[in-house]
Amino acid sequence: MSKEPSTNLESAMQMLIKTFHKYSGKEGDKYTLSRGELKELLTEELGSYLGNSKDNEAVEKVMNDLDANNDGEVDFTEFIILMGALTVACNDFFLDSKPEDGAKKN
Amino acid sequence: MSKEPSTNLESAMQMLIKTFHKYSGKEGDKYTLSRGELKELLTEELGSYLGNSKDNEAVEKVMNDLDANNDGEVDFTEFIILMGALTVACNDFFLDSKPEDGAKKN
Repeated sequence: MSKEPSTNLESAMQMLIKTFHKYSGKEGDKYTLSRGELKELLTEELGSYLGNSKDNEAVEKVMNDLDANNDGEVDFTEFIILMGALTVACNDFFLDSKPEDGAKKN
Repeated sequence: MSKEPSTNLESAMQMLIKTFHKYSGKEGDKYTLSRGELKELLTEELGSYLGNSKDNEAVEKVMNDLDANNDGEVDFTEFIILMGALTVACNDFFLDSKPEDGAKKN
């Protein structure tokens, strides 16, 4: 039934979906991330980006920011908003660290 | 300088960034997608998802929806909002088409 992705963009979408469900299915509601599942996802999948902080502070902050309806669970849409924000931040960092070739020369 | 991604989530972020710049760099502003670049990206990278429609209508609609500031260009943040919306739609489709195991059985 599931078609293999044929482009990088399709692969990226599938990876986002698969990663979310890998963790959301562990406990409680299968389709949302609990605080524990979110922490596990962030440290295991984004540890090298987020600095692998041992304390819970960063996870708590992300959870509180994401959990718009305050039910202690992060749904897929909320997760995608987080990943979008992180990807935009990554892209900005990538552009800032790249020497401008030609543009913005006065 | 660029570190190889070590997890699926990191790969997904890199693929989104790389795909955008592959097309945005083709003409005009290197860091935004023109109408032509967006059309090329959508048909080449998401053709099988979007149905490979030959007409411009779908691309025009996406462009108009995305181009919040009406300058005829889609920046990275606007692109990520589109990809996020598509990924959420894909996820919903995936969940709807999956037989519920246990839940919602009457």
